[in-house]
Amino acid sequence: MQTTEKWGIFEVSVNGPREGNPFTEQKLQAVFTGKNERVEVTGFYDGEGIYRVRFMPSFEGEYTYELSGSFPEASGSGSFTVTAPSANNHGPMRVANQYHFAYEDTTPYYSVGTTCYAWAHQPEKIHQQTLEELDKGYFNKMRFCVFPKHYIHNFRDPETFPYEGTPVDNSGLSEETFTYQVDFTGNHWDFTRFNPEHFRRIERCIEELMDRGIEADLIIMHPYDRWGFSCMTPEQDDLYWHYVISRFAAYRNVWWSLANEYDLLFRKKPADWERYAKILCENDPYNHLRSVHNCMAFYDHSRPWITHCSLQRQDLYRHVEFTDEYRTRWGKPIVWDEISYEGNIDMGWGNISGQELTRRFWEASLRGGYAGHGETFLDPEHDILWWSHGGELHGDSPARIEFLHKVMSETPGHGLKRGEGSFDETVGVPDGVDFIPGGGYEIHYYGFGRPSFRDFVKPDGQWKAEIIDTWEMTVTDAGVHTGKFRISLPGKEYMAVRLTRVR
Amino acid sequence: MQTTEKWGIFEVSVNGPREGNPFTEQKLQAVFTGKNERVEVTGFYDGEGIYRVRFMPSFEGEYTYELSGSFPEASGSGSFTVTAPSANNHGPMRVANQYHFAYEDTTPYYSVGTTCYAWAHQPEKIHQQTLEELDKGYFNKMRFCVFPKHYIHNFRDPETFPYEGTPVDNSGLSEETFTYQVDFTGNHWDFTRFNPEHFRRIERCIEELMDRGIEADLIIMHPYDRWGFSCMTPEQDDLYWHYVISRFAAYRNVWWSLANEYDLLFRKKPADWERYAKILCENDPYNHLRSVHNCMAFYDHSRPWITHCSLQRQDLYRHVEFTDEYRTRWGKPIVWDEISYEGNIDMGWGNISGQELTRRFWEASLRGGYAGHGETFLDPEHDILWWSHGGELHGDSPARIEFLHKVMSETPGHGLKRGEGSFDETVGVPDGVDFIPGGGYEIHYYGFGRPSFRDFVKPDGQWKAEIIDTWEMTVTDAGVHTGKFRISLPGKEYMAVRLTRVR
Repeated sequence: MQTTEKWGIFEVSVNGPREGNPFTEQKLQAVFTGKNERVEVTGFYDGEGIYRVRFMPSFEGEYTYELSGSFPEASGSGSFTVTAPSANNHGPMRVANQYHFAYEDTTPYYSVGTTCYAWAHQPEKIHQQTLEELDKGYFNKMRFCVFPKHYIHNFRDPETFPYEGTPVDNSGLSEETFTYQVDFTGNHWDFTRFNPEHFRRIERCIEELMDRGIEADLIIMHPYDRWGFSCMTPEQDDLYWHYVISRFAAYRNVWWSLANEYDLLFRKKPADWERYAKILCENDPYNHLRSVHNCMAFYDHSRPWITHCSLQRQDLYRHVEFTDEYRTRWGKPIVWDEISYEGNIDMGWGNISGQELTRRFWEASLRGGYAGHGETFLDPEHDILWWSHGGELHGDSPARIEFLHKVMSETPGHGLKRGEGSFDETVGVPDGVDFIPGGGYEIHYYGFGRPSFRDFVKPDGQWKAEIIDTWEMTVTDAGVHTGKFRISLPGKEYMAVRLTRVR
Repeated sequence: MQTTEKWGIFEVSVNGPREGNPFTEQKLQAVFTGKNERVEVTGFYDGEGIYRVRFMPSFEGEYTYELSGSFPEASGSGSFTVTAPSANNHGPMRVANQYHFAYEDTTPYYSVGTTCYAWAHQPEKIHQQTLEELDKGYFNKMRFCVFPKHYIHNFRDPETFPYEGTPVDNSGLSEETFTYQVDFTGNHWDFTRFNPEHFRRIERCIEELMDRGIEADLIIMHPYDRWGFSCMTPEQDDLYWHYVISRFAAYRNVWWSLANEYDLLFRKKPADWERYAKILCENDPYNHLRSVHNCMAFYDHSRPWITHCSLQRQDLYRHVEFTDEYRTRWGKPIVWDEISYEGNIDMGWGNISGQELTRRFWEASLRGGYAGHGETFLDPEHDILWWSHGGELHGDSPARIEFLHKVMSETPGHGLKRGEGSFDETVGVPDGVDFIPGGGYEIHYYGFGRPSFRDFVKPDGQWKAEIIDTWEMTVTDAGVHTGKFRISLPGKEYMAVRLTRVR
C-alpha cells in the first residue's frame, strides 16, 4: 500500500501521447476520496510523454482515487494511506484571528519574510549559497517569481525559460539603457508549449523552502520582462494560470501572489486580475493564501478573494506606521512585503541601513502587521544581489529579524495589535480575542527615540519588566513593579520595554 | 547733538509720578519725525519714577520728536541725527520672496534657530554659559519666553517675576506630580503692576542676541504656568500686551511669537488671539514678524496678520517633509520651530539623535522652509537642559546646523524650494524669481538613504558636481560633467550632491 503523510503530496503519473500539443490537446483529472473529503484535481503534462496529477490530503486515513482524461492511459484507480504529519509539517497557511496567520494545525505563524525574486533562475553555485543562508533560519517566508526577470542587475539570461522557443539576444543590455517599455521583437516563443524543466526548477525551490519551514510566496506574474511573458493574450495567460495551479497547488507551503507590482503591468486591466483570481478560486482545491502586490496604487484589498494585504510602501517616510490604519480599512492581515531593502545601491528602495529596516520590522509587527526583508548591496564583480539572485547575505538586519521573530513567538495568543500608548511610542499588545481582559502583556517600542528612562503606571497587579535591545538582541530583566514605576534605559535608539503581568 | 544709528534705538526718559499706579494711571507718547517718516510711539513706566519712550528710526538724517502725556514732565521736544547703520546692523527682519526672509537692507537671512525657552530667567552663571555657546555662531534665531516657565525640569523659581507680588510655594513640586491643570491658589499678584526688573532682563537678552546677530523670537504667552499668567482677564492681558510692545518693539531683532503651544492655553479663545494680534498690528510701528506656534492644531496661518508659519510637528514620522505642501497651502514662509530635540530624555519630543535632527534641518531647508534646534540631555546633577535653561551644549547637531547655514548662504537668490526629483531624493533649487530660467543650481539630498552612486542627466551645459557630506561637514569636488554622468558616493547616510552650471 502506498502512503503519504497528511499535507504531503500524493502524485500519480501516467504515460500518454507525445504527439500534437499535449499541453492543449490532452486532459487528465482525478478525484481523490477519503472519509472526510472528496477532491477533484486537474493534472498536467510534464514532457517526455509523462502526465501527472498531484494531491495534498487534509486528513489521515484511507483514500482512493479515480483517474479520467482524454487518452487511454488516463484512466484507472488506486488507493493509499495518509499517515500523521511529520514533526515539521504543520499544514498549509491560514488566516487566524482575522489579522494574523496560523498553520492549518493551529500553530501560530509570525511572518518574517525575505525576497529573492529570481533565485529560481540562477546557476547552481548561487542556488547553493542561497540555501546555506536560508539554513540559518532568519526567515520563514520567501517571495520569488515563476517567470524570469529583466531589470537592472538582471540582464543575464535565466537558466531555463518557461516556454519552448528562443529568447531575444541579451548582449548589449545594460543599466544605462534599461526601460520598462520593451517591444518583444527578437523573441520566438510558443506560448502553448511549456518547458517542464523550468517548472521543475520552481518546484525544487518550493520543496527546498518547505524542508526549511519557509513559506513560498510565489509571484505568478510580474512586469520585469523582455520576453513578452507579461503581455500574452488572455487565452495564453489562462493556459499559464491553469498549468501553474495544477503543478504547484499541492505544495502545502505555497502562497499565491498574483503579481509583483501589478500596476506596472500596463496592459492588464482590473478584469484580467479578477479573471486570474476566479481561475485560482475555482482550481486551487486547498484555498492557499492569495494576494496582489502593488508598486504605487494599492489593489482593492477589500475584494473577497484576497486573503491578506501584500503591500509595498507608498511613502518614503511613513509606511509600516500605517499598519493599524490599514487593518481597520481592510480587516485583513497586513504584510509589508516591500519597505525598502538594506543596501547601498543608488535607488532609495534599496539603500537603507540595517537599523532602519529592523526598525520598520518592529513597527509593523507591534502594530499587528508583518514585514519583509530584502538586501541590495552593490557587487561590482559578480552583480549578485540577494533581493533578486539570492547568494550570500551581507547585511546586519537578518539576525535582528530572527530575534524579532523569537520575541513574537513569545507573544500570548495569535499575534499583536497596537495598544494604547503615548504619541512617542508604539505599544504592541496581544491581539487574541481570548486573551485575558485588560491585557497583561505589552511591548513598548521607542524606535529612533533615545529615552534614558520611561515611566509606567500600573495600579493593578505585579508586572515583570524586561528591557529589549532590538539591535543588540538582548532581553534584560528589570524587576517586578506595581503602581507608578520608572525603568532606566540606555538613551540609545531601538529599545523596547516588555511588561508582563505576573500576578 | 544726540545721534543714533539707523535701526538703532533712540530713547527718551523723563521723571514722573511714582504715586498711585503709574502703569495704569499715567500716559506718555511721542511723535518722531524725520524727512521720510512720522512715527507715533507709546512710552512705558520703568519704575523708580522713570518713564521711557523708545524709537527705532528707519532712515538716516535729522529727526525731531515731541513728547506728550498725562503728567507735567511728559512734554517737551528735541532733535537728533540718525547715522548709517554699523557693519552688523542690517535692520529688522522682513519676508522676502514670499517664502523666505531678508533683513530690511535686503541681506538674505537663512533661519537656523534654537530654543532656550526660559534662559532669560536663569542665574547669572548659566546665563554666561549660554552666551558663550551663542558666541560660537551656530544659530541666528532664538526662541524664548517673557513669562517664566513651569514644566518638567522647570520647577525652580525664576530670577524675577513679571508682576509685583509673591509666588506660590514651589517646594514639593516634581516631575511626578506635574500637570497642566493648575489652580493658582497660593499666588498673590497685582496684575496691574509690572516688575520692571523682569522686563529689563528680557531686554538684556534681546540686546545680547542683537550683538551676536541673532534674532529674538519672543514668546509673549505660553501655557507652562503655576502663577496664573496664562489665565489673566482680557483687561490684564491687554495691559500686558501694550507694556510688552512699548518696551520691546524698538529692538530691531524682535519677532513676535504670540504664543508657544497656543492650543494648550485652554482658556483662550480664537477671539482672544485675534485681539492680541490687533493690539500688535496697531501698536508695533515697525511691523515686526508675527506668528503663533501650535502644539497639536495649527493656528489658521492664512490670517493676514500672520507673517510666517511657526510650526510644531504634528506627526512623529513626517513633519518637515510636509514643508512644500504647507508652502502651497499658506503661501508664507514655513519655519519648523519644534521638530523634536537632540537628547535623551524620556519624551519623544526630546530624545532624537543629532543625525536625525540634522536630517530634519536639511529636509526643511531644501524644501524651501527653515528649522529650529533644541537640546534635551538629562542632567541629573543640575537639571540644566539647553532647550529651556540654556547653559552648555552637549550635542552633535549644532556644528552641522552651522554647516547647513554656510551651504544655504552660498545659494543664489533668496532661499531654496523643492525642485523636480525622483521619489527617493529631495532636490533644492533656487527659489528666486529672477534666477536664470531652468535653474543652474541644485542640491540633491538622500537623507537616510545610502546610495553608492547616483546618475544624472544634463543634456545642456557643463555642470560642476560637489559631494556634500552633511554630517562630516565636507564639500568635495567631483568634476565637471555634461550629458549622462555618474557620481560615486560612499554608500552612507546624510549625503548630498550639489550641481552648479558653470557654462
